Amino acid sequence: MSTVWTRKDLLTIRELDRAEIELVLNTARSFKDLLAQRVKKSSSLKGRTVVNLFVEPSTRTRTSFELAATRLDADVVSIDSASSSFRKGETLKDTGQVLEAMKADFVILRHSAAGAPQFLAERLKAHIINAGDGAHEHPTQALLDTFTMRERLGEKLAWKDLHVVICGDILFSRVARSNVWALTKLGARVTLVGPTTLVPEIFADLGVTVAHDFDAVLPDADVIMLLRIQHERQQRSFFPSVGEYVSLFGLNMTRFQKCKPDVLIMHPGPINRGVEIASELADGPNSTVLDQVQNGLAIRMAALHLLGGSSEVS
Amino acid sequence: MSTVWTRKDLLTIRELDRAEIELVLNTARSFKDLLAQRVKKSSSLKGRTVVNLFVEPSTRTRTSFELAATRLDADVVSIDSASSSFRKGETLKDTGQVLEAMKADFVILRHSAAGAPQFLAERLKAHIINAGDGAHEHPTQALLDTFTMRERLGEKLAWKDLHVVICGDILFSRVARSNVWALTKLGARVTLVGPTTLVPEIFADLGVTVAHDFDAVLPDADVIMLLRIQHERQQRSFFPSVGEYVSLFGLNMTRFQKCKPDVLIMHPGPINRGVEIASELADGPNSTVLDQVQNGLAIRMAALHLLGGSSEVS
Amino acid sequence: MSTVWTRKDLLTIRELDRAEIELVLNTARSFKDLLAQRVKKSSSLKGRTVVNLFVEPSTRTRTSFELAATRLDADVVSIDSASSSFRKGETLKDTGQVLEAMKADFVILRHSAAGAPQFLAERLKAHIINAGDGAHEHPTQALLDTFTMRERLGEKLAWKDLHVVICGDILFSRVARSNVWALTKLGARVTLVGPTTLVPEIFADLGVTVAHDFDAVLPDADVIMLLRIQHERQQRSFFPSVGEYVSLFGLNMTRFQKCKPDVLIMHPGPINRGVEIASELADGPNSTVLDQVQNGLAIRMAALHLLGGSSEVS
Repeated sequence: MSTVWTRKDLLTIRELDRAEIELVLNTARSFKDLLAQRVKKSSSLKGRTVVNLFVEPSTRTRTSFELAATRLDADVVSIDSASSSFRKGETLKDTGQVLEAMKADFVILRHSAAGAPQFLAERLKAHIINAGDGAHEHPTQALLDTFTMRERLGEKLAWKDLHVVICGDILFSRVARSNVWALTKLGARVTLVGPTTLVPEIFADLGVTVAHDFDAVLPDADVIMLLRIQHERQQRSFFPSVGEYVSLFGLNMTRFQKCKPDVLIMHPGPINRGVEIASELADGPNSTVLDQVQNGLAIRMAALHLLGGSSEVS
Repeated sequence: MSTVWTRKDLLTIRELDRAEIELVLNTARSFKDLLAQRVKKSSSLKGRTVVNLFVEPSTRTRTSFELAATRLDADVVSIDSASSSFRKGETLKDTGQVLEAMKADFVILRHSAAGAPQFLAERLKAHIINAGDGAHEHPTQALLDTFTMRERLGEKLAWKDLHVVICGDILFSRVARSNVWALTKLGARVTLVGPTTLVPEIFADLGVTVAHDFDAVLPDADVIMLLRIQHERQQRSFFPSVGEYVSLFGLNMTRFQKCKPDVLIMHPGPINRGVEIASELADGPNSTVLDQVQNGLAIRMAALHLLGGSSEVS
Repeated sequence: MSTVWTRKDLLTIRELDRAEIELVLNTARSFKDLLAQRVKKSSSLKGRTVVNLFVEPSTRTRTSFELAATRLDADVVSIDSASSSFRKGETLKDTGQVLEAMKADFVILRHSAAGAPQFLAERLKAHIINAGDGAHEHPTQALLDTFTMRERLGEKLAWKDLHVVICGDILFSRVARSNVWALTKLGARVTLVGPTTLVPEIFADLGVTVAHDFDAVLPDADVIMLLRIQHERQQRSFFPSVGEYVSLFGLNMTRFQKCKPDVLIMHPGPINRGVEIASELADGPNSTVLDQVQNGLAIRMAALHLLGGSSEVS
C-alpha cells in the first residue's frame, strides 16, 4: 500500500482514506526516531511560517504544535484567545486573510465552532490544520492515538482483530469522533460506552457498537480509551454527579481485574486522577498516556511535513 | 536622489525628510521580493535581539514586527502589557535600562503616552522603533501606507498630482498624523474629513485641507483612507451614535459611485465592516487592506535593517 | 581549585560546594564576553528544548532565561501561569511528565511552593533549574550577585575580607537565603538587617550576624544588598507602614554618607524608587542594579551550558 499526500489541509479524519492515514503514521515513525536524538531538528520547514491560532485556548496542544514546527525549523508565532485584540471587531475570515497577507504558510486553528478550519481552508492558500473544532473533529489526536496503538501492539498489528472501547463523554467529544473515523477506516472494531445521555443510540450509524454497561465490555477490550470529563463543554448536566459517574464509568483496579492483562489504557489528557482513571493505572505499565503525548509531537511533525514540507528532507 | 540612513531610531515621520522616507520605501521594495519566496529569510539581524514592548496591547502590530524580526534572523522576545510584572513598580526608564542590560539591540515600543519612544531613545543605546505612541505618531503605518500607494499607483507616481482624503477620527489618530507628515513631505495633497468634533480647523496649519462633507470631497480623491473608530481612545462621545457616523462618513456603495473608478480604498485595520466601510468595498478590487498588511511586514523589515542590520545583506 | 560539573539540576545553593559555585562564576565570565559581541550566539544547546514553566509569574526572570537559552541556540517554549489550561486538573508531576514526553531537555521552574523544583528533579530526566521556589531559594540570583561582587571588586577579591549587609524582608526572601548560602560558602562575612519581625534571631544559626539597626552596620559594609518589599508574599503586615520602613531601612543620601565611599549598592530589582533605595543612589556609580541584570544573563547561560550543553562549545 503506497500513496502520496495530495491534500492542502488536514481538517478531518472523515475525509481521509486508509492509505492516507497510514501514510501519516509511517511518516511520523521516522520523525519519532529524530526526536530520540540529542539534536532533534529537521530543516523541512526552514524559512516557512507557522501560526498557531488558538481561539479556544489549550496550552498543551499549542505547545505540542509549537515544538513540532520549531523542530522542523519553521518560524512560529502563537496567538492565544487571551490576545483578543487580533479578533477585536474582526471576523475569522478577516483574521485568516491578515495572517495570509503576513505570509503565514500554515495556520493551526483551534476554534469552538465546528467547521471553522474548513471555512478557513476554503478561503486561504495557507495550509490549515484542525487542532480541534467544537465537538466535531481533532484529527491529530486520532492519528497519534492510532499511532500509539500500532506501536504498542506491534507493527504486525491486524486492525481487524482489534477491539477498542471508548468510554465517557462521547456526545461532546471531538476526540471520540475522530477516533471512530480513524479506527473504522483502519478496520478495527469500536464500542462506545457511557451514560445514555452522553452516548445516544444514533452513534451506531457510524459503524460502531453502542453500550452503556462498562463492566460488560471490559473483558473483550484490547484498548480502553477514556475521555476527559469536560464540564466546560456541557451546557447542562448529563449525569447526576461526578461520584455517580466514577462509580459507573471510572476505570479502577476492580474493573482492571476484568480486563485482558495486556489491555492498553489510553487517555488524551490532562487526566482527572481518580475520576476517569485510578491513579495507579494511569502510572502503570498498561497506560499509554505519556506515549500519546510524545507521539503527538511526531504526528504533528509528520502532518506539517506532508502538507507543505520540503521534499528533500525526510 | 540618494541618501544613507544615519538615525539610531525611528520615532516620527515628522523628523524625516523626503529622501529618508524614500530610502525606507526603496529598501522595503527588496524585502517584499524576499517575502514572495518560499524561504523568506535574510540574515541581516543574525545574533541580534529584538524586544517587542507593547505596553498598550496590539496582537496584529506585534505579530507583524515579530515576523519581520524573525525573518531577518533576529532573536525576538515579546512582552505584552498583560505581563504586568515587568512594569510592577517600575518606570519606563527602568524597564528600558533592564532591556538594554539584557543586551536588547532593538526595542519596539507601543505606549499610550505620546513621546514615550522619544524618551526611551534619548536614554538607551538600543535602537527604538515607535510602534504607536498615544495619539502622536505611528511611523511604520504611514510608511506602509505610502508604500502601498506607490505600489498600486505605479512607480512613476507623481506625488504632487495625488489627492489623499483621510476620513474619520482624526483628532485621536496617530495613523492620520503620521500620514499627514509623510504625504505632505512627499508632495501629495491631503484633505482631512470628519465631524467637526473630530477634525478641528487647527489641522489646516499642517498644510492640509480640512473638510466636513465627505460626499463633497469624494469625486476628487485618488485615495480614500478610512480610520478605525476607536471607542477606547475617546474619553467622551464625539458623535451622537455609530448609526449617525455611518450615515455621514461610512464609505458605502452609493458614495463609491461618486468616486473615480480607480480610487484606492485604504484602512489600517482591523475593519469594522459596515461602519467605516461597506463589506463589499473592503473585499473589492479598489481595497488595499490586505496589501497594507503585507507591505507592513516589508516596511518593518526595512526599518529594522536600516537602523541596525548587517550591511553585507540586502 | 579545579572541578567539573556533575549535577543534573541546579536546585539550591545550599547543596553546592565552593568549587562548584566558582565553576559557575568562571563559566559565566566567558559567556559575558560573548554577550559583548554583535553576534551574541553560542551553539551549545543547538537542537535542544528549554521550557520555561513559570507557575508564579515573572516577566523579568522569564525573559532573562528565555534570552539566555536563545543565545545558546536552544528551542524555547514559555508557559506562564496565565496559561492555566496546562495545569487544569493536572498535578505538577503530571505537567512535568508531559513536558518530558514532549522531549524537553530543560525545565526552568518558578513555583510558589518551596521544594517544587526538587520534586520535579527527582522524577524527570530533564535538567531542572530552580528559578525561585516560594521563600526557599533562587540560586541563579545568588550566583549573579556574587559574580557581580567579584567583577566590581576585582578578580583578586578575598572573600574572607568582604562584609555584605543584606537589608529588608529577609523572612520571605529566597534571594536572601540563597545569597547567605553562597556568601558563607565563599567565606564572606554576612549581616542580615531589618525589623525584628522580618529578621528573626534564628537566622544567626546560618552563620551570619543578625542586626536591627541599619545605621549602625553601614560604616563597616563593603556591599549593601537591599531586598524588594514584597507585599504580595506577606500574609499580614510586618511593619506599621511603608513610611516607617523607609525611615528605618531605606537607603537614602544621609545613610550613604555613613558608608565606605566605594560601597556596592545591590538590589535584585525591580526597584521601588524612594522606598528601599533613593533614586539618585540607584542611578549612581555605586549601584550595580544594571550589572546584576546583565550578569544574570551570563549566569543563566553558564548554568544551562554546564547542566547539559555541548562540551565542544565554551
